[in-house]
Amino acid sequence: MSLAEDLAERVREGEIRLHELEDHTDADAAATARRLLVADESGADLEATGAYAFDAAVAEPNVENMVGAVQIPLGVAGPVTISGGALSGDRYLPLATTEGALIASVNRGCGVLDAAGGANARVTKTGMTRAPVFKTDGIVESEALAAWTRDNADRLREAAESTTSHGEVTDVTPYVVGNNVYLRFRYDTKDAMGMNMATIATGEACELIEAETDASLVALSGNLCTDKKPAAINAIEGRGRSVTADVTIPAEIVEDRLHTTPGAVAEINTRKNLVGSAKAGSLGFNAHVANVVAAMFLATGQDEAQVVEGANAITTAEVTDGGDLYVSVSIASLEVGTVGGGTKLPTQAEGLEILGVRGGGEPAGSNADALAEAITVGALAGELSLLAALGSRHLSSAHADLGR
Amino acid sequence: MSLAEDLAERVREGEIRLHELEDHTDADAAATARRLLVADESGADLEATGAYAFDAAVAEPNVENMVGAVQIPLGVAGPVTISGGALSGDRYLPLATTEGALIASVNRGCGVLDAAGGANARVTKTGMTRAPVFKTDGIVESEALAAWTRDNADRLREAAESTTSHGEVTDVTPYVVGNNVYLRFRYDTKDAMGMNMATIATGEACELIEAETDASLVALSGNLCTDKKPAAINAIEGRGRSVTADVTIPAEIVEDRLHTTPGAVAEINTRKNLVGSAKAGSLGFNAHVANVVAAMFLATGQDEAQVVEGANAITTAEVTDGGDLYVSVSIASLEVGTVGGGTKLPTQAEGLEILGVRGGGEPAGSNADALAEAITVGALAGELSLLAALGSRHLSSAHADLGR
Amino acid sequence: MSLAEDLAERVREGEIRLHELEDHTDADAAATARRLLVADESGADLEATGAYAFDAAVAEPNVENMVGAVQIPLGVAGPVTISGGALSGDRYLPLATTEGALIASVNRGCGVLDAAGGANARVTKTGMTRAPVFKTDGIVESEALAAWTRDNADRLREAAESTTSHGEVTDVTPYVVGNNVYLRFRYDTKDAMGMNMATIATGEACELIEAETDASLVALSGNLCTDKKPAAINAIEGRGRSVTADVTIPAEIVEDRLHTTPGAVAEINTRKNLVGSAKAGSLGFNAHVANVVAAMFLATGQDEAQVVEGANAITTAEVTDGGDLYVSVSIASLEVGTVGGGTKLPTQAEGLEILGVRGGGEPAGSNADALAEAITVGALAGELSLLAALGSRHLSSAHADLGR
Amino acid sequence: MSLAEDLAERVREGEIRLHELEDHTDADAAATARRLLVADESGADLEATGAYAFDAAVAEPNVENMVGAVQIPLGVAGPVTISGGALSGDRYLPLATTEGALIASVNRGCGVLDAAGGANARVTKTGMTRAPVFKTDGIVESEALAAWTRDNADRLREAAESTTSHGEVTDVTPYVVGNNVYLRFRYDTKDAMGMNMATIATGEACELIEAETDASLVALSGNLCTDKKPAAINAIEGRGRSVTADVTIPAEIVEDRLHTTPGAVAEINTRKNLVGSAKAGSLGFNAHVANVVAAMFLATGQDEAQVVEGANAITTAEVTDGGDLYVSVSIASLEVGTVGGGTKLPTQAEGLEILGVRGGGEPAGSNADALAEAITVGALAGELSLLAALGSRHLSSAHADLGR
Repeated sequence: MSLAEDLAERVREGEIRLHELEDHTDADAAATARRLLVADESGADLEATGAYAFDAAVAEPNVENMVGAVQIPLGVAGPVTISGGALSGDRYLPLATTEGALIASVNRGCGVLDAAGGANARVTKTGMTRAPVFKTDGIVESEALAAWTRDNADRLREAAESTTSHGEVTDVTPYVVGNNVYLRFRYDTKDAMGMNMATIATGEACELIEAETDASLVALSGNLCTDKKPAAINAIEGRGRSVTADVTIPAEIVEDRLHTTPGAVAEINTRKNLVGSAKAGSLGFNAHVANVVAAMFLATGQDEAQVVEGANAITTAEVTDGGDLYVSVSIASLEVGTVGGGTKLPTQAEGLEILGVRGGGEPAGSNADALAEAITVGALAGELSLLAALGSRHLSSAHADLGR
Repeated sequence: MSLAEDLAERVREGEIRLHELEDHTDADAAATARRLLVADESGADLEATGAYAFDAAVAEPNVENMVGAVQIPLGVAGPVTISGGALSGDRYLPLATTEGALIASVNRGCGVLDAAGGANARVTKTGMTRAPVFKTDGIVESEALAAWTRDNADRLREAAESTTSHGEVTDVTPYVVGNNVYLRFRYDTKDAMGMNMATIATGEACELIEAETDASLVALSGNLCTDKKPAAINAIEGRGRSVTADVTIPAEIVEDRLHTTPGAVAEINTRKNLVGSAKAGSLGFNAHVANVVAAMFLATGQDEAQVVEGANAITTAEVTDGGDLYVSVSIASLEVGTVGGGTKLPTQAEGLEILGVRGGGEPAGSNADALAEAITVGALAGELSLLAALGSRHLSSAHADLGR
Repeated sequence: MSLAEDLAERVREGEIRLHELEDHTDADAAATARRLLVADESGADLEATGAYAFDAAVAEPNVENMVGAVQIPLGVAGPVTISGGALSGDRYLPLATTEGALIASVNRGCGVLDAAGGANARVTKTGMTRAPVFKTDGIVESEALAAWTRDNADRLREAAESTTSHGEVTDVTPYVVGNNVYLRFRYDTKDAMGMNMATIATGEACELIEAETDASLVALSGNLCTDKKPAAINAIEGRGRSVTADVTIPAEIVEDRLHTTPGAVAEINTRKNLVGSAKAGSLGFNAHVANVVAAMFLATGQDEAQVVEGANAITTAEVTDGGDLYVSVSIASLEVGTVGGGTKLPTQAEGLEILGVRGGGEPAGSNADALAEAITVGALAGELSLLAALGSRHLSSAHADLGR
Repeated sequence: MSLAEDLAERVREGEIRLHELEDHTDADAAATARRLLVADESGADLEATGAYAFDAAVAEPNVENMVGAVQIPLGVAGPVTISGGALSGDRYLPLATTEGALIASVNRGCGVLDAAGGANARVTKTGMTRAPVFKTDGIVESEALAAWTRDNADRLREAAESTTSHGEVTDVTPYVVGNNVYLRFRYDTKDAMGMNMATIATGEACELIEAETDASLVALSGNLCTDKKPAAINAIEGRGRSVTADVTIPAEIVEDRLHTTPGAVAEINTRKNLVGSAKAGSLGFNAHVANVVAAMFLATGQDEAQVVEGANAITTAEVTDGGDLYVSVSIASLEVGTVGGGTKLPTQAEGLEILGVRGGGEPAGSNADALAEAITVGALAGELSLLAALGSRHLSSAHADLGR
């Protein structure tokens, strides 16, 4: 009987609990024992799951009850030329996905971006947020608490920043609903995505509030942050990075390479991404930005559930005065980091290296800015490619109609 | 010079294009050649990326320009007892994530669910949608097209269903905005997530419409579907599966195991998940459902970008007449499948096996229903655990206040 | 001491309660007595308020504790030529407003519509809704209730329709959230706005449900109706009438009469009404449709609080292939009636007469349709006028820029 | 032939245009002439419309093409005791409405508020907004413009404030979408609702921007203001006044006067106003706040189309630790003024007098604050009354169930 089999047996017999296996052996053997147990009870064959190629101990900050790893195919699009505020030059874009045709589509878009001289990109707003909710005795006290936070902004900042060597409080805004007061703290978390940093710092500030006022903390997150839920507050005010990529493509290139016209692309964007989304009650006025966000998030160790906020994007397309095609993608709330979280895992770190943004940037925050710009350029390529494909089909259909 | 080096060189020299490598060698060698190229140009070391443990040819339907794979730690929570419409029994829940503490939290929730006798789950609505947009000459024609689709519902169904052996059209609803008509087709796609099936079938129906009316198809998706964007139409009308899991937990268990009270949990849920989300302009009235959706999507080969729709969830918590705690999670638009897409990849197929839902169900659709139920029970466990942790903190803080 | 003074005195002394005055005298004298009381306690002079020109008894179904009337200036725009599904011909549009320049703007728009041959209008969907909420024991029972309503659709319809001689149930859709089931009943209420009819009929259907199932009615309105709140369900699925008005204006007329170009108007509409509204997290993609809805609602005796739903409108503007300007306004949820409610009051009845839609239509429902079309044409005129004014300013500014 | 008949004839013959009548006679005669024309062409009898009781010249700033006035019944609720930040004491609430039972309902609520010692009210945020949209050459210039506005905040404020003796700029926030930059200016407009003041001031600031940057003004309102459309930006960030009213009602009073229990009211509020609204994709989490806002807006000369924003309200209800009932209404964007607009019209001025808030306050802004507080207390009364009615019915139904 192997060590793993022995440990599995002891779990079965109730001697050890499933999540305590790491107390009795190393991380890899613990995972092996769990695979035995899970395979046994479910009938699943977990061979592929066990064939991961990293030291399980490395993943301990990222997972509990580890049984192995999921392997997701990684491809590249590009290279594409990016003129960003933080990222300049040619980059391959790493995308991990299981959706066939996605990378091909982004790749085609990258080619067109390059033919047009590359894409511009800029981060226009930065700030990770955390919004605790306090309970008061009623509106009189709520109003007083809101006033107190405005009067004591410096002390709140000081308390919050005492917990972090990098983070900076950039705003605290109170929102009042009856006897609930939500305080939306915003932080510059530099190259970290910053959720943990923001949570710890906000916790410290909350202790000051509870000590000095009669308000009672209900929850460190009162859902006005808003983390991992589709929320207008993020689409409007931003969270993480607000970032735009754009390009102007000469009409000739649109016609030769995309087999459509600037006018057709603009029309489709209006009818589908603007009017269609409007009628759907949407916060996402784009075609498939989330596809690129999700695939680049996985490739670079970002939080996969924050794809939700990454879908808060608006795509615009218009014919310029000169008859060319202008296209832009503005993602309101792209939450990215190049340090911490999943970025340290081996394959994910390599994904960041492909973009040249692994670890802390110089100056601090510039690597996360660069990552945000790269993802948004990828999204722009994806939008362009899909709109053009529709335009090309639309045009040929229109020609067919004329030929009737 | 190895074959891969040789191929890489030929790409560099422009003889072969990056995406054509598979035409000159097998999928694994092509990926190796690409790694050489990308590593060379980016300076990245891609060793971990190249250490994937499957035959690259298997992934050809899922990725282009493959360079390797991303490996994401996989853990399990549970086992948890589920009384679903399609899934009954004890299951380990597979979760692939890089967010530390997530699985521990879900696991704790599963333990409490089990202590309460397990969770119920039901799929209450099913239907994958696709909504093309047509352009008309104006409102007179738009109204006529809407009427035509109602009068010709049978023919549209027939056309659409001619493209699929499994899918069934269950509804076609027209939405009119000026000279735009959006037709939201809804399909029962059985065990497939169904986006491709719905797209192909809708394309066929569109040809009928273009042939018989003066309307012109602008785009096969007019964004009222709505795919991979946060949209009220999905939160209200559902997409994929609308599914709920719930549980009633005796007060004793809430106190002993969660160190809080039914009242505290209900209050926190109201102030945070209901009122806080309301103030945020949210479509997601929950704490962190997307975390579980994302992690189980990755573990089971679902489309990672559809986590966006999976976040359209409402969590309720209340004290029952008997003083116990009732908690529910209702996900409006959970788009899942157990066949097609990423479900065939080796590790992902094993994730489905852990749940016992790999491949087509008997009857058709029951495996995807079961998967939806399992994910929602996982989300319920995660919500319960997080709310209880807040409740426990809140309670101890309240005690501290009383002790002042 | 006059009768009114005497009654006022008796209220002061607690002999009569304020709302019981009508039990002691006629409606006008009761109102006079109240004016005395209110004037006395507030110091207000209520002479103008008392100078109403109708028999107070007429208003008894519309108001309690009447003290008099508010007088709102009424103007007209037009006449404008309307080619509607229910309304054809030239009409003056009555607008009651206190916002200077509004009627002038709508009037200018009407002139341009007429120069272009008039506006088209069509009602594309009809249905007043009411959505009670039931409490169940949990998701198992919720799912069963949803199934029961589908299986017993005919009985529900029968019960509901037993309360009304005109109304017809056209749909009952269940929405499930945990142990809550919302049933959205939709009715064709013909020429009545229909809120009362829908409420009474739904109440009857609810009794059947409570008698035959274990579900318990919580509230006759569970807010999925949705009445008098901004809600995506109305913007998407409609409530009352979904109605569109549109027009194609020759480029020459745009230039000569509006001093702008089709391209400028389309551009402004995109940047302001589509992209701007998208960024604002809006359900209203228009410039000022609510202005016209509010003014025509007041002029014709509609429910002033339902202006809220009337703002769920999308304005589109585009350059046609021929270079002309196409503009449309689609209001998703315009709740109007020509019988009942405020339509019987003297001035309001005259407002309906101006449009030729007073009372029940032939066939039933056609007068309310016609009213909806007239309001939407008014809204179109208002949108056109405002967009053109911006376009004209934009153009002159652009010229000035060129001249620098 | 009377003067009016003569003038009408001249309009018919094309000598005078309809809107030029005031150039040829006084406002009342012009209105008479128009009535003749409109009555003649429509067949309407406009006698009641002509029986207005004010000098038409007074209404010239408020209306064009005047034909008369609409008369809307005015009632009162109360008196109710208000403990506000700006308004203290007992007030009758004036409500103009055509919806039977509304005032009775508010009146009942006022009685309960008073039995509980009156309602509290506070304005928690103030600011009228206007958000012009500028076009730039792309994201590089958009980012530069956003930075410029931050760097030149003082100059923008100076320019804007040069146009007004009362208004103050309190914030300018840039929002970037591709080549569009929206600048949301916020003003303290004191006792004026402030839309005109904000528009004029913003126009001046825009001239500075156009003079000093390459950006081009597209529209003075880019829909991020957001005026008269349902928009999350208002529900979240507020517009006009953000104001809350609340009350704690002893359980005894709830039982004796409302025939229900605190628990029943809280439960109904959660299922209907919170969960129901959540499922509806709503921005309004209340029962019928818009009813009171609309009726008090009409009674006091507010802009009737801004009822739209007034519906952005959240109602909360909960059982206190002591077993009593806490209820609050928080309206996010209540746009009110006591000077300008319709407030000068005779009946409307009297409506303000009833509340004691006519004209400018001391200090400036306090009358508009007081009006906002009064309306919100009215809304609270309306919510309480409706929830209690549901609770009472629910309770009796529950009793009946128990008796089965």
